[in-house]
Amino acid sequence: MIGIKSIASYVPVDGLDNYAQGAKFDKDNEFILGKIGSAFLPRKAAEQETSDLCVEAVNALFANNPELKRESIDALIVVTQNGDEEGLPHTAAIVQHKLGLPTHIAAFDISLGCSGYVYGIYALKGFMEATGLKNGLLVTADPYSKIVDPKDRNTTMLFGDAATATWMCEGADWQLGKASFGTDGLGAPHLKVTNGVFFMNGRQVFNFALVKVPEHLRELLRASDLKADDIDAFCIHQGSAAIVDAVARRFEEAPLEKFVKDMVETGNTVSSSIPLLLEKHVLPSTWKRVAISGFGVGLSWGSAILHRK
Amino acid sequence: MIGIKSIASYVPVDGLDNYAQGAKFDKDNEFILGKIGSAFLPRKAAEQETSDLCVEAVNALFANNPELKRESIDALIVVTQNGDEEGLPHTAAIVQHKLGLPTHIAAFDISLGCSGYVYGIYALKGFMEATGLKNGLLVTADPYSKIVDPKDRNTTMLFGDAATATWMCEGADWQLGKASFGTDGLGAPHLKVTNGVFFMNGRQVFNFALVKVPEHLRELLRASDLKADDIDAFCIHQGSAAIVDAVARRFEEAPLEKFVKDMVETGNTVSSSIPLLLEKHVLPSTWKRVAISGFGVGLSWGSAILHRK
Repeated sequence: MIGIKSIASYVPVDGLDNYAQGAKFDKDNEFILGKIGSAFLPRKAAEQETSDLCVEAVNALFANNPELKRESIDALIVVTQNGDEEGLPHTAAIVQHKLGLPTHIAAFDISLGCSGYVYGIYALKGFMEATGLKNGLLVTADPYSKIVDPKDRNTTMLFGDAATATWMCEGADWQLGKASFGTDGLGAPHLKVTNGVFFMNGRQVFNFALVKVPEHLRELLRASDLKADDIDAFCIHQGSAAIVDAVARRFEEAPLEKFVKDMVETGNTVSSSIPLLLEKHVLPSTWKRVAISGFGVGLSWGSAILHRK
Repeated sequence: MIGIKSIASYVPVDGLDNYAQGAKFDKDNEFILGKIGSAFLPRKAAEQETSDLCVEAVNALFANNPELKRESIDALIVVTQNGDEEGLPHTAAIVQHKLGLPTHIAAFDISLGCSGYVYGIYALKGFMEATGLKNGLLVTADPYSKIVDPKDRNTTMLFGDAATATWMCEGADWQLGKASFGTDGLGAPHLKVTNGVFFMNGRQVFNFALVKVPEHLRELLRASDLKADDIDAFCIHQGSAAIVDAVARRFEEAPLEKFVKDMVETGNTVSSSIPLLLEKHVLPSTWKRVAISGFGVGLSWGSAILHRK
């Protein structure tokens, strides 16, 4: 079975002081840290394309895993809704070329937002198992700095640029358990781009997440024959400190501390938020079993159990 | 194993008389039929969105398969590079809502062009098998009329609008055999959109297909322990009459007649071309085994064997 072998990331060093940005909107430091959750929002350089963020993340993965050779990569999925070009070609093809990956590679983009990593790991695992491929990369890179209006107080304090790369192969330590998914296009207008500018109805998205995510986690645990006590940590999409706190409080079966919260230096990195948590908190841990949950654009949501082999 | 149960399509009734269009570019009827291959190019109505084409194709699928209930659909992939919105949200979410599909559905877009169907069937099969989902829809809809410049003689005579819907589930008649894939982002500039307008370097794409596709089919047959004689028909992407003829001639192991050619009334429908052939020529046939091959934007290519259960 294909599982998660290693995760690496790229977070731009440059970015915005979110306290300074908050001050422009009359938001104090308590609001920025307590509600938004991020003191700093990484920003890609103007000349960096989405594919360049992907390349940085994959090169970090190669650096961490010298046994992984470029020539052995045979599958590549890029999860993004802010790719290099206007729809076509797909960013994964550009990444293949920039990285010098072999041409006998299956490469495509998946269009999903904050739920994208949960879908992406099953899409890559499934595609590889269905086609007999051996070494796949799932790359997330959705730089919202391309579309966020710096004058929009509902979005400009939230999002950070980042990319992650997940190596999936046979015999990996972390295996994929049960997963559950959902989509409700009725809520599509709550998160969308018009004339190149991102709009978010924050209240609607907050309410959606608060109602949907705890219940979805419960369903997943029931389907997996697990109790909350069996889960060492919950790594949910880091939409904001407020939403992570609110979901954690509503999921009363688990103590608040089990909900990993780490966005102070990254902001909401869309589909990169969950793999950033996994890279930093789960893969180096002694934990046996974690739950992940992503939710956002679509509206779309997905939750899954990851467990050690 | 998840396989292909049924395929339906939507081809707009309105469109362009390609002979009349050819005359504007001093192209005679022999050129239009013999080289381009299409006397008529279907065009969606201005008010039809990509999601509307998807809805028409899926409704045709429901009409053909009364036993397939909306409530039982749990997976939906839309293959497109010309979706409804500017990157986000994904078109699959909009299709979910317009069709009234259940919200407990996994839905996302795959960004691929003319190779998209080959990737898409393995992506959907793999995703469903990895997650235990039961009834999936693979929808293709890439209306190039959105991006083709009617003054560009290299593209405006080629492309037609269409959509297809493929029902994938357990116990289907047509199973997916071995597949092989490739990507070469070095050729990304040969097919791309800039400022909303599609550009194609026709000669480069023709040469790429002519060199790549016959060899790729040979590799696939070798990997499958099959000979050309074991294949009842070759259903390759209908890029143009010239490219299908040229690939067929270069693949000397099989008689020309085994290469299905049917684009007179559709044009090049991008990721819909292969499922249109399967719907019309393969599913109603007594054939036992066919090869499919898609190639284009990326550059990206994919070939696979489909066989009766």
